[in-house]
Amino acid sequence: MDPMSHVVTAFSAQDHAFMGRALQLAARGLYTTDPNPRVGCVLVREGQVVGEGFHARAGEAHAEVLALRAAGEEARGATAYVTLEPCSHHGRTPPCADALAAAGVARVVAAMVDPNPRVAGRGLARLRAAGVQVESGLLEAEARELNPGFIRRMERGRPWVRVKLAASLDGRTAMADGESRWITGEAARADVQRLRARASAVLTAMGTVAADDPRLNLRLTPADLGIDAPVRQPARVVLDRTGRLSPGARLFAPPGGPVWVFTAQEALERQRAALEAAGARVDAVPLRDGHLDLTAVLQALAAREVNEVHLEAGPTLAGALLQAGLMDECVLYLAPHLMGTQARGLFHLPIHDMAGRIPLEIRDVRPVGRDWRLTLQVATPGDGAGTG
Amino acid sequence: MDPMSHVVTAFSAQDHAFMGRALQLAARGLYTTDPNPRVGCVLVREGQVVGEGFHARAGEAHAEVLALRAAGEEARGATAYVTLEPCSHHGRTPPCADALAAAGVARVVAAMVDPNPRVAGRGLARLRAAGVQVESGLLEAEARELNPGFIRRMERGRPWVRVKLAASLDGRTAMADGESRWITGEAARADVQRLRARASAVLTAMGTVAADDPRLNLRLTPADLGIDAPVRQPARVVLDRTGRLSPGARLFAPPGGPVWVFTAQEALERQRAALEAAGARVDAVPLRDGHLDLTAVLQALAAREVNEVHLEAGPTLAGALLQAGLMDECVLYLAPHLMGTQARGLFHLPIHDMAGRIPLEIRDVRPVGRDWRLTLQVATPGDGAGTG
Repeated sequence: MDPMSHVVTAFSAQDHAFMGRALQLAARGLYTTDPNPRVGCVLVREGQVVGEGFHARAGEAHAEVLALRAAGEEARGATAYVTLEPCSHHGRTPPCADALAAAGVARVVAAMVDPNPRVAGRGLARLRAAGVQVESGLLEAEARELNPGFIRRMERGRPWVRVKLAASLDGRTAMADGESRWITGEAARADVQRLRARASAVLTAMGTVAADDPRLNLRLTPADLGIDAPVRQPARVVLDRTGRLSPGARLFAPPGGPVWVFTAQEALERQRAALEAAGARVDAVPLRDGHLDLTAVLQALAAREVNEVHLEAGPTLAGALLQAGLMDECVLYLAPHLMGTQARGLFHLPIHDMAGRIPLEIRDVRPVGRDWRLTLQVATPGDGAGTG
Repeated sequence: MDPMSHVVTAFSAQDHAFMGRALQLAARGLYTTDPNPRVGCVLVREGQVVGEGFHARAGEAHAEVLALRAAGEEARGATAYVTLEPCSHHGRTPPCADALAAAGVARVVAAMVDPNPRVAGRGLARLRAAGVQVESGLLEAEARELNPGFIRRMERGRPWVRVKLAASLDGRTAMADGESRWITGEAARADVQRLRARASAVLTAMGTVAADDPRLNLRLTPADLGIDAPVRQPARVVLDRTGRLSPGARLFAPPGGPVWVFTAQEALERQRAALEAAGARVDAVPLRDGHLDLTAVLQALAAREVNEVHLEAGPTLAGALLQAGLMDECVLYLAPHLMGTQARGLFHLPIHDMAGRIPLEIRDVRPVGRDWRLTLQVATPGDGAGTG
């Protein structure tokens, strides 16, 4: 049997319930596993959970290993529910497929095949070869939603791009003079902190740095995120074509993740020494129509194992990413007021007729304090990533 | 005791449940009672409902009379739950306060005092004088929401103004050339039909008539509205300062309510004869800053017993109403796409800084087909109308 094929299996209600539990476990790693995927595992024998685990941090044990440890001898003959295909390669830890087979697990149900080309069905094949019954595809859409960035990076060589926007009900993000503090309330701003916390990197444009001098760091405590380890600060990425970024920017004041600057070749040496002295990494990317090539930037980020990119910038960069087909998701906070005709819009987008409008899918709508949050995704025709 | 005072009473859970039922009954008149208020009544004796009624149409029996008829002799000693103070005056029907007292009702609980100055506490006083125990204020906010237009008209001499808008997620209502069909989907357009159906009048501007030649009528059947009578077509009101409206406009093609035109004195005779021949009523209103005085228009509509005005027009009229403090509610349909920077905004509103932005209250958010509907209200400081 082709290990890549999705066997059409009639999963039982019990199978669904245990995979649901495995998905819940996996989600506990939302803020910590980066750059690894979030993975959960439940071991079940005779209808009873005998072991559970989730991957917490790169370099630490995988979900399957933790569940096996918890189950001990009871793993023998058990069914393992895993949200991602067990790994087949020696990475930072030995292959989980081997560990499951060695423990005598009788059946493995995976929510999805690993998109990592180093795995990509080999983990399931290895289990089958060891005589383990293997099925996959149970709650796959839900499993993909846990790891949109990891999947994008493995499947397309670029991160998942999530654009955060805050606007008034009339779709305005700043007054004509750029004034934008504060459009949304405290609860929405705390929610944005959690969006940053799940991202590998926060991306912005030099224009935003010049206007607002933002820190783009996390001000949350581990308790705020429900984690028992220090808060992981995402990298801050600045697109600075003309080499204007100053080492005096607040981005360089701790706490915060590393600062990565992308600039044009011709501007590469302008601030490089000063920025590197301040701890930044500075790289040149090619230009495209006079702007930094956004695809090249995202490919460079993927090479640094960036899974989810969180964009906080103005309508120009947001519009450029959208037009280049590089925006995957937009989290739009709508504040309950009107900012008027002269204020700035959400995306800089030249569209001339109704046929040219850009369809989005509204995935989630919920109140956040006095504001409302809309989660939008760009429908990609023929996108194998589905909902991921 | 001052009949206008709201006695602070500890209403029981049973009181709440029966008033809740009376509110449900009242809502059945949503599309039919105009220009009368929507009112429901439940008669309860020894914990059992012995009669129910709701007002269906002007000229027909009031809710209290229908409930008394249903209860017959069982009304004696009963409690009457009414969503609006029983009337005390001889209008199209005899006073309900007298009917309740005559039937031997022992206690009357009213959700709210009637804002009609011809009643305004006199109904409750009349009941008290007849020895009936009287309380009011139970679920008052909910009762006011049934009749925002009737209450506005009685309390302020103008209708409730509900502005309907359809926009893309980036807050755009039309392309730069005016193209706007169709921003929202079929479900949202059917929902708009229901908004029109509850309104006394649909208001628009000559600019919209010139651009779209809309009918602004109801295309729903009685079954669509869940009513057992012909659909009531709201009046169509056109603001036409310069006298441009043609009797050939589709507004004049049946079916549809009457067409009322407001124009400037200087343009009054321009099209008047032709429009009146086509069935329209044409009136002049004063100008204010070169535009038709919107307050005068709304006062004229209130004089015609218009409770709820439903606005379907462009950003200019919507913005003017909002700026004049005459917009009470905005129903905003957000369609899942982006229309871009050059497209037209929601309201024409010159606002220069964040301090000048206009606060709104998001009262309701729900999906309507593939679109989302937001119901917004303008917070009026010290507004006795509360949520109404």
